[in-house]
Amino acid sequence: MTIRLHKGDLPDLSRYTGSVAIDTETLGLNPHRDRLCVVQLSPGDGTADVVQIARGQSEAPNLVRLLADPDVVKIFHFARFDVAVLYHAFGVMPEPVWCTKIASRLVRTYTDRHGLKDICRELLNIDLSKQQQSSDWAAETLSDAQLSYAASDVLHLHQLRDRLQTMLAREGRTEMAEACFRFLPTRAKLDLAGWPEQDIFAHS
Amino acid sequence: MTIRLHKGDLPDLSRYTGSVAIDTETLGLNPHRDRLCVVQLSPGDGTADVVQIARGQSEAPNLVRLLADPDVVKIFHFARFDVAVLYHAFGVMPEPVWCTKIASRLVRTYTDRHGLKDICRELLNIDLSKQQQSSDWAAETLSDAQLSYAASDVLHLHQLRDRLQTMLAREGRTEMAEACFRFLPTRAKLDLAGWPEQDIFAHS
Ligand SMILES: Nc1ncnc2c1ncn2[C@@H]1O[C@H](COP(=O)(O)O)[C@@H](OP(=O)(O)O)[C@H]1O
Ligand SMILES: Nc1ncnc2c1ncn2[C@@H]1O[C@H](COP(=O)(O)O)[C@@H](OP(=O)(O)O)[C@H]1O
Repeated sequence: MTIRLHKGDLPDLSRYTGSVAIDTETLGLNPHRDRLCVVQLSPGDGTADVVQIARGQSEAPNLVRLLADPDVVKIFHFARFDVAVLYHAFGVMPEPVWCTKIASRLVRTYTDRHGLKDICRELLNIDLSKQQQSSDWAAETLSDAQLSYAASDVLHLHQLRDRLQTMLAREGRTEMAEACFRFLPTRAKLDLAGWPEQDIFAHS
Repeated sequence: MTIRLHKGDLPDLSRYTGSVAIDTETLGLNPHRDRLCVVQLSPGDGTADVVQIARGQSEAPNLVRLLADPDVVKIFHFARFDVAVLYHAFGVMPEPVWCTKIASRLVRTYTDRHGLKDICRELLNIDLSKQQQSSDWAAETLSDAQLSYAASDVLHLHQLRDRLQTMLAREGRTEMAEACFRFLPTRAKLDLAGWPEQDIFAHS
């Protein structure tokens, strides 16, 4: 597996046209408290870019241009969180967005296990290790184990999307999924603005 | 208060341009089990149309034309439910939609009481009676109490929207509210398709 490590930004966008798989690592789950440490990206060719973000960094011109490009689909697993983190860090809303967790909820109705590990195991027969998930992502030097964990979280997202897209089409749920994806930027803004837990659509 | 009672459909749409306040009464909260019995509408002039719907009725040409008209905003309280009911009954998705409950959640952050009665009391100083809420809405002849309850649920929605719109603008949340409203048809479709309780955007 090829991992390209960078500090602060992608060196250029030549690899990214059409679609990009993205994941982020932070110091925790509260975007107002826990800063963005790493952004991982993959063009879907089995390679990954791992970008370390410095404390207080609010600019990353290439990354921001990619996130804002309406012609590049951003594939995430649980996009809601990463989209909020990226918007908070750089002030840019990643759009359009594709989320493998929501797609899984909409088609894998035979299970309630929609974690990335579960989906990869079932649909791709790939066993992801989640050992490094809780680790110090702000470390100056990331360990090899961290790097390969970070990369593995984006390496399979294109393939997963392909499989889930087929299933969505088969069940006639593509349009419903796309409407959910379109709402994700607003869902992320609500998280940041102070409605993190509440289902804004609930009766009470 | 002027109430016009109809069977099966609105006689014409001359009163309805620009916006309409709508509420529905059903036999219960499960749209697959509990049929639509009454549709109430108000042009916002202090009058209301109350339309009784027959068992098995799936057509109502004037009503359907109104619901489908992209130039007429449909104002609801808790639109999610009524929109699902109307889509299920007539196969038409009411759009665009404005929901006083979501607007209230977004601006009345000083309370967790977002019931129609609570909002009317606070914002309009109007005391709604909810006595007839649980009653037999499929009755051949609706009682006077039922009729005035049904009407009262739509009579104030225009005024409520005006108040809430001002508050949304004041707090810079108009865009966020509108994005939520745009997602409501999908939220209603998810309810009907089998995801009624689940927050599709939740992590787990
Ligand atoms: N409340 C929550 N609980 C667990 N994970 C959450 C979460 N909110 C956001 N996440 C993110 O969701 C990802 C895990 O999703 P899943 O459990 O579906 O595989 C984690 O990303 P990482 O794997 O990049 O750390 C984590 O950052
Ligand atoms: N789970 C639920 N609990 C209570 N009311 C619900 C509900 N789901 C939908 N509703 C609808 O929401 C309306 C009440 O909203 P609120 O409590 O915010 O005033 C009721 O309409 P009606 O008043 O027309 O009967 C009811 O039909």
